[in-house]
Amino acid sequence: MRSFGSDNHSGVHPEIFKALEAANIDHAPSYGTDDWSDRAQKLFQKEFGPSAKTYFVFNGTAANVLSLRATARPFQSVFCSDVSHLNIDECAAPEFFFGGKLLPLATLHGKITVSSLEENLIRRGDQHFAQSSVVSLTQPTELGTVYSLQEIQQITNWAHAKGLIVHVDGARLANACIHLNCTFQQMTMDLGVDVVSFGGTKNGLMMGEAVVFLNPKLSENFQFIRKQSAQLPSKTRFIAAQFERYLSHGLWKEIAKHSCDRAEELYQGLRKIPGLEIATPRESNGVFVKIPQPWIKVLREKYFFYVWDEKTWVCRLMTTWDTTSSDIQGFLKLMESLK
Amino acid sequence: MRSFGSDNHSGVHPEIFKALEAANIDHAPSYGTDDWSDRAQKLFQKEFGPSAKTYFVFNGTAANVLSLRATARPFQSVFCSDVSHLNIDECAAPEFFFGGKLLPLATLHGKITVSSLEENLIRRGDQHFAQSSVVSLTQPTELGTVYSLQEIQQITNWAHAKGLIVHVDGARLANACIHLNCTFQQMTMDLGVDVVSFGGTKNGLMMGEAVVFLNPKLSENFQFIRKQSAQLPSKTRFIAAQFERYLSHGLWKEIAKHSCDRAEELYQGLRKIPGLEIATPRESNGVFVKIPQPWIKVLREKYFFYVWDEKTWVCRLMTTWDTTSSDIQGFLKLMESLK
Amino acid sequence: MRSFGSDNHSGVHPEIFKALEAANIDHAPSYGTDDWSDRAQKLFQKEFGPSAKTYFVFNGTAANVLSLRATARPFQSVFCSDVSHLNIDECAAPEFFFGGKLLPLATLHGKITVSSLEENLIRRGDQHFAQSSVVSLTQPTELGTVYSLQEIQQITNWAHAKGLIVHVDGARLANACIHLNCTFQQMTMDLGVDVVSFGGTKNGLMMGEAVVFLNPKLSENFQFIRKQSAQLPSKTRFIAAQFERYLSHGLWKEIAKHSCDRAEELYQGLRKIPGLEIATPRESNGVFVKIPQPWIKVLREKYFFYVWDEKTWVCRLMTTWDTTSSDIQGFLKLMESLK
Amino acid sequence: MRSFGSDNHSGVHPEIFKALEAANIDHAPSYGTDDWSDRAQKLFQKEFGPSAKTYFVFNGTAANVLSLRATARPFQSVFCSDVSHLNIDECAAPEFFFGGKLLPLATLHGKITVSSLEENLIRRGDQHFAQSSVVSLTQPTELGTVYSLQEIQQITNWAHAKGLIVHVDGARLANACIHLNCTFQQMTMDLGVDVVSFGGTKNGLMMGEAVVFLNPKLSENFQFIRKQSAQLPSKTRFIAAQFERYLSHGLWKEIAKHSCDRAEELYQGLRKIPGLEIATPRESNGVFVKIPQPWIKVLREKYFFYVWDEKTWVCRLMTTWDTTSSDIQGFLKLMESLK
Repeated sequence: MRSFGSDNHSGVHPEIFKALEAANIDHAPSYGTDDWSDRAQKLFQKEFGPSAKTYFVFNGTAANVLSLRATARPFQSVFCSDVSHLNIDECAAPEFFFGGKLLPLATLHGKITVSSLEENLIRRGDQHFAQSSVVSLTQPTELGTVYSLQEIQQITNWAHAKGLIVHVDGARLANACIHLNCTFQQMTMDLGVDVVSFGGTKNGLMMGEAVVFLNPKLSENFQFIRKQSAQLPSKTRFIAAQFERYLSHGLWKEIAKHSCDRAEELYQGLRKIPGLEIATPRESNGVFVKIPQPWIKVLREKYFFYVWDEKTWVCRLMTTWDTTSSDIQGFLKLMESLK
Repeated sequence: MRSFGSDNHSGVHPEIFKALEAANIDHAPSYGTDDWSDRAQKLFQKEFGPSAKTYFVFNGTAANVLSLRATARPFQSVFCSDVSHLNIDECAAPEFFFGGKLLPLATLHGKITVSSLEENLIRRGDQHFAQSSVVSLTQPTELGTVYSLQEIQQITNWAHAKGLIVHVDGARLANACIHLNCTFQQMTMDLGVDVVSFGGTKNGLMMGEAVVFLNPKLSENFQFIRKQSAQLPSKTRFIAAQFERYLSHGLWKEIAKHSCDRAEELYQGLRKIPGLEIATPRESNGVFVKIPQPWIKVLREKYFFYVWDEKTWVCRLMTTWDTTSSDIQGFLKLMESLK
Repeated sequence: MRSFGSDNHSGVHPEIFKALEAANIDHAPSYGTDDWSDRAQKLFQKEFGPSAKTYFVFNGTAANVLSLRATARPFQSVFCSDVSHLNIDECAAPEFFFGGKLLPLATLHGKITVSSLEENLIRRGDQHFAQSSVVSLTQPTELGTVYSLQEIQQITNWAHAKGLIVHVDGARLANACIHLNCTFQQMTMDLGVDVVSFGGTKNGLMMGEAVVFLNPKLSENFQFIRKQSAQLPSKTRFIAAQFERYLSHGLWKEIAKHSCDRAEELYQGLRKIPGLEIATPRESNGVFVKIPQPWIKVLREKYFFYVWDEKTWVCRLMTTWDTTSSDIQGFLKLMESLK
Repeated sequence: MRSFGSDNHSGVHPEIFKALEAANIDHAPSYGTDDWSDRAQKLFQKEFGPSAKTYFVFNGTAANVLSLRATARPFQSVFCSDVSHLNIDECAAPEFFFGGKLLPLATLHGKITVSSLEENLIRRGDQHFAQSSVVSLTQPTELGTVYSLQEIQQITNWAHAKGLIVHVDGARLANACIHLNCTFQQMTMDLGVDVVSFGGTKNGLMMGEAVVFLNPKLSENFQFIRKQSAQLPSKTRFIAAQFERYLSHGLWKEIAKHSCDRAEELYQGLRKIPGLEIATPRESNGVFVKIPQPWIKVLREKYFFYVWDEKTWVCRLMTTWDTTSSDIQGFLKLMESLK
């Protein structure tokens, strides 16, 4: 099966699989006290800055909702985009875990703006109204666009001036670094981001995500929050070893570049096909494109992908670490044949 | 490092690791719709009975607390043993996830009795009192003892007569089957158990547990409960493939037998050493033994283990799938040298 | 002080106060087992239909959020209007108590339509999406409009066909009966409404609201839900006695009629004043009117009221059981003087 | 009906009812911004100390569980007595509201001791164990005994040295003051108590309790916690006015003294009746006495009371502000007749 369905349809990158194999020796302490966890922790500090505190969890839902539990109280609210995973794809997990309210903001191409935040930061101190306390950005967004460093800076400046905390849902954060040609630290710590959900599973890992506190004060009780939230892995070495490898020898960059390059190849092919309409700028590892409805069924028989919007027939095509040019050319050829 | 610290100090059984390797091909659908998940689901039905419904989650905490979310409402309470993991090792995760109250019962060697349940089933229908709705047994118990089939039958009979649901925390369920020389089905489905937390991580898997509903009506909303609880893995094939292998060609039995045999070897060695005192019957893959305090530090330098009770110096020695006779004989020899 | 601020700025209706006085004799059982509670329960059945089950709680927030706890599970969602009290004035109490998600719908004059419900009932059975399970209407709405019997019927028909439950936030339900010239039963039970938050405090009581289950199956565990939610009054007779009086000798109708008549008087006065703009139809005990900004400060010094929308200067003027014609004429006169 | 069932079987003290009547004039702002609330707030500061911050809630369950929400996080635990209302009479409301775990301690006559706390303060910093953060005392206890000032001081000293917060469930706090002949401030603020659930309903009010923060830092977010917990009354003046009267002209002392005097009269009568056995010291407004089983039914036909323990036939006899000597002498006479 070949799929443009999701980055999580691919398997484990061979280098990361080798790291798992290498970690599978002898006995090791559990619950994060192993050597792999130590080394991975240090690599995160190298990538994000020396004050970063990193906690591994199992999946992206957990990284996001535990970040919120750590930064928002139940009587508070969290700004997020109206198309954010948090808002529409987590079966009310945010509400369950942090106990309060999401405030989804209308967005263009999935990006929150300061003016929209400003307009919605209301009724502060009014006991009848859930008090806004966190801004959650998705980088890259669910629509494959990327906040510029300046846009992030504007949001963190605004948020901190108002006493709010900034969370970044970075399930595919590495891809944004490729687009902006910057480091993780330049995109987060240097701009004042407080906490990051750092993705692994969508970037070639078997499973595993990290909650990275750039503002270490926010991590104070996080070990207990993680445990109570059923997200403390026991054989931690097998998550840590994957991240250790992912952050070594530029592997993260290689994987991200490959995914983005294939998306660009796909984008360039699609824009030449009459009858298609690109829906959002291509800035990460996905292309959002309006496809004539009759084509969709035929295409999906051979290459699975999701219809993003059943009203407009905008479809989402995701590339990943193992997408090949031959996948893309085959897909484009099939499309050509449907014209 | 060699350790008697916990079954989760060991790595991944080579056969299970091979299964992971074999699953790491091509693209596969995510969120449980892959072929590995299908096959694993069928193997669980073979082992537990044709009506069993199985859901994978990441860890044992999750298997337990999600079982409770599925069976108890927040205004209810759950009977468990006073030494149960649920009660003392989950950082209040049960209270957080299901929202109600645990009612820990005093136990001998970790086993709940019908008479104790009977005595504590009080104030039914009284709106001021959290209403008992579930009995949670640990099999084998946290103290390494095993409920007999008759004991389980008595509890399920009593519970069902009273309208209560029976949950089994089976983080090491296979080991209990070895001790009782029975199948999973004989120990659970045939006795009326409603839902089982079925352990993988402590039995040679890298990570992964299963919630097995033997009473399938209780699973009705479980897919949503799992998702909202942040326990829906995306690349499910990598959990399913492990369980598929674990339940094939008698591997589970082989692993459990090895662990129990090594525990027996350890037990037989320890009981011959003067100055030691066995604390609980050896029925699973652990030995609980009172060790003279001055020995402990020396022993732990070479072989890590936990002091179970700092007042009595009862220690917990756990064996696992990769514990060797040479580990055990080395440990016993070191002990002899301390006499 | 005279106020058009809120129906809860007024005190206790003299007849209801007398009922409190009459109930203050001797000893009475607590927690709902008193005679006043029995008699009030029967009066609710007389008003809503013989199968109605009524539970008293302290305030309107509680009546609403406990209704949701009784009808929605945490992995579900509740449709409500974007201007509903539930959504914007409860400090995330709905999310806290029922644990799931509100889905606010854009509305005209505060009224939800079937077409809007239809459009937003999506992704049923998709484990990633909180499953819609309840429609919550406010009658009269927060903008003083009233759903017609036909509109309610359309919504309940649609909801039941889709397997959803219908809740009515009826903090001022009596006023809607006056507008529609119908009984409580005709507006709720006869149309298939499942559960009603029935207001007392805003209708002349000292404090006290009722959760009225018209679908009695939904009330099955409500006594426990109420107790666990800290909403079981101990000296229940003092809430029950107020409702007993409120529902006797047509007092509810008298109070509601008076409030609505005063609102109509106010409305008729305001529409004649040049420079004002009525914002929504006057159908209950409030008038929403756009007032020239410079007038507002002067008016509020003598008669308190809320600015409903600080962007448009639409103000909310509420009348209540003790609003007098002299209050209204005085207010109108003051306005005239500001022209 | 005459009852020794509970202090909440009595009605409203006439002086307090008069205060309600006096407050029932004109319009008043709602949600705590009225003059009665201001004056009541100041009276609490007079009684507890100038830094006290007081918040009204509806009932005792709420005062207790909201105190815990303000002082404990979900991954923490709260020490309480095994017979505490919190532990056995709140239908898991504490677990629901604060989200964590109660740690009930075995007690003699309902009183927690420092040695028991010391023994149970374990595993601090261990992420697997819910972290103890609050000690909750009931004064007087559920068994009618009273902590001495010295006992409270020992507990607060110990707690603060360990970084724990001290909460007092004072549903009948005034009665403890009578027994100890001290002021509220001497019993709480001066000894370092952090927060008090201050009872009204059981002391002659119609309804209403207060959460009194003696450590004002803990009250920082309490207005939001209260609102989200559905405990913000709208017509606040009617709760505040009751407390204003209760704390004026020594009324609280008069009521408490009357209740305790009647309990003493009852106690003196009971101890002279052969066949009875006093179970706990009489220090508040209740007597716990073992009554021969055959007497109980006959007695309860005329004077309702609760059997406290169905195994030992210890019964609880509560007096209140309107218990008369004639009630007591009638009860004793009836008992004499049963010998």
